[in-house]
Amino acid sequence: MAQVAFNDKQISMQHGAGGQATRRLVEGLFAPAFANDALNQLSDAATLDINGNKLAFSTDTFVVTPRVFPGGCIGALAVHGTVNDLAVSGAVPLGLSAGFVLEAGLSTDELRNHVEAMANAARAIDVPVVTGDTKVVEHGGVDGLIINTTGVGLIRADAQLAPERVRAGDRILLSGPIGDHGITILLARGEVDLDADLESDSRSLLPLTSSLLERLGGDVRWMRDATRGGVATVLNELTQGRSLGVLIEEAQVPVRDAVRGACELLGLDPLHVANEGQFVAVVSAECCDAALDALRQTPGGEEARFIGSIVDDHYGRVVGRTSFGAKRIIDVLVGDPLPRIC
Amino acid sequence: MAQVAFNDKQISMQHGAGGQATRRLVEGLFAPAFANDALNQLSDAATLDINGNKLAFSTDTFVVTPRVFPGGCIGALAVHGTVNDLAVSGAVPLGLSAGFVLEAGLSTDELRNHVEAMANAARAIDVPVVTGDTKVVEHGGVDGLIINTTGVGLIRADAQLAPERVRAGDRILLSGPIGDHGITILLARGEVDLDADLESDSRSLLPLTSSLLERLGGDVRWMRDATRGGVATVLNELTQGRSLGVLIEEAQVPVRDAVRGACELLGLDPLHVANEGQFVAVVSAECCDAALDALRQTPGGEEARFIGSIVDDHYGRVVGRTSFGAKRIIDVLVGDPLPRIC
Repeated sequence: MAQVAFNDKQISMQHGAGGQATRRLVEGLFAPAFANDALNQLSDAATLDINGNKLAFSTDTFVVTPRVFPGGCIGALAVHGTVNDLAVSGAVPLGLSAGFVLEAGLSTDELRNHVEAMANAARAIDVPVVTGDTKVVEHGGVDGLIINTTGVGLIRADAQLAPERVRAGDRILLSGPIGDHGITILLARGEVDLDADLESDSRSLLPLTSSLLERLGGDVRWMRDATRGGVATVLNELTQGRSLGVLIEEAQVPVRDAVRGACELLGLDPLHVANEGQFVAVVSAECCDAALDALRQTPGGEEARFIGSIVDDHYGRVVGRTSFGAKRIIDVLVGDPLPRIC
Repeated sequence: MAQVAFNDKQISMQHGAGGQATRRLVEGLFAPAFANDALNQLSDAATLDINGNKLAFSTDTFVVTPRVFPGGCIGALAVHGTVNDLAVSGAVPLGLSAGFVLEAGLSTDELRNHVEAMANAARAIDVPVVTGDTKVVEHGGVDGLIINTTGVGLIRADAQLAPERVRAGDRILLSGPIGDHGITILLARGEVDLDADLESDSRSLLPLTSSLLERLGGDVRWMRDATRGGVATVLNELTQGRSLGVLIEEAQVPVRDAVRGACELLGLDPLHVANEGQFVAVVSAECCDAALDALRQTPGGEEARFIGSIVDDHYGRVVGRTSFGAKRIIDVLVGDPLPRIC
């Protein structure tokens, strides 16, 4: 990993947005301090070896505003987010921890609703919440509540996922339409005067990642859920520093009309908008059709699409090609158009 | 586990103090929602089975004020706290996750100091921080920073720790003087006009728990670090609902003069004050001397003491006996004399 300098004097919102500034903070401050092989991968989950068993281990803190939104709430999100980090690492989750920070004055009814949403989400996926911790801070010390979930999972024997396995010619698949979560949250805040019939895509990706691995095994090279920073950011992270490029066929990227409309109005690129229930998979060219078939046969994967390829060109760059053949560079998110959405 | 009702309308500071109110919240709200065997143990760490390997899994969120104090800082505390939860579960930690919530405006220098303290603490124990997450919230959204650490560890083959293994006649050992952390934090806040030459006891308990298990194996029945709620609370939790009692020889409990003085002035019982580097172990009567010897031979365990016994009397109660023979019930912490100290 190239050494990055982090010279910003203060932390600002953009350091949490999942884009360029987050990456500088992580690579320039956290990674050098904690330097070790597992962390240096900077993937969604670390891999630990337990007497020959490969364990995935991943953490995520949830600070969404508003805490209840169309299609979900912070509680369900906290389960899905960490389960998805394990799922795209090729793991079957074994258990979650839940760390709550509660603001004094929070109503018990609201807390109970979030906890029940967490419990229901966990039960639906059959992943137990096995350990927890609760802290209370004075009124004003946090905004309502913060939930950290950390998960451990057993990496499937058929998973051979690593960015190093990605090569030119490989195909890029997307599990479904993008931007639903980010735009839903933005609208739920009521800060933009826009109405849309839209819900967060907060859901477990485990059925989809499992189908894919079951069908393709080692022909699935790499997977990543496209949360903060969106599809553009995860693909940029995949190519960064590697001798390959990404070519996205923009017409193939599924985006709902409501999301596209909101993005146009707000000057956002849907490829930068966060999702909580979509992932990107890179598969071998030979298996692209089988992969799409596996996804589409699985409930929730009906809208999966081929969206582009890994190319032996424009190394380290993600390039989009319109249906007219025009090309543009798709960079990582710079700044923070959508704070606190996951 | 008996069903507890949680009828409080709002969350208040005492629900985070580690005493009676915390227990009602956990048993009355969290546990029924997440109900599963691993969680129902309500121990410091859950146990997960990975193809015959017993894994300990524990989470803790740190929200201490002030964030730097004599003897430590929130960063070192975040490593020690979770490592100790694993250590008293009989586990050797394999890796930690670190979840940061940063307030916009936090100075990079302060963040770097805490991160380096974490990294140094982790390196000193040889436990890597393998995965992480960073969120930034708007100024005022949290107080500076919050750190969640979650750890996984492999439970030692020689550990057979369970509250059910504790029986009348067993001896209770304490690793060293109590109350240093809680009183240090209280004084560091400057809210009481009192000066004392005192430092937090924030440290890893791993060398001590390892020595004890190596020497005694199954004769160590149960261990617990005495954090929020202090020694009194962990012993009350041990006896609660069981047909046994705890008898503490109060003269044997090691308390530094500075802590005793501050407690007297403030009307606190040192047995209720939080520690970040002390634990309670219950061992078989036959092995009490060997256990004390093992602790005292280990650097940091020189002040370990026998402090009492498990008795076939006053079931579910912790009773203290003074050197004059007078007895008093030592209850769990009620209310919150020391908010936000860990």
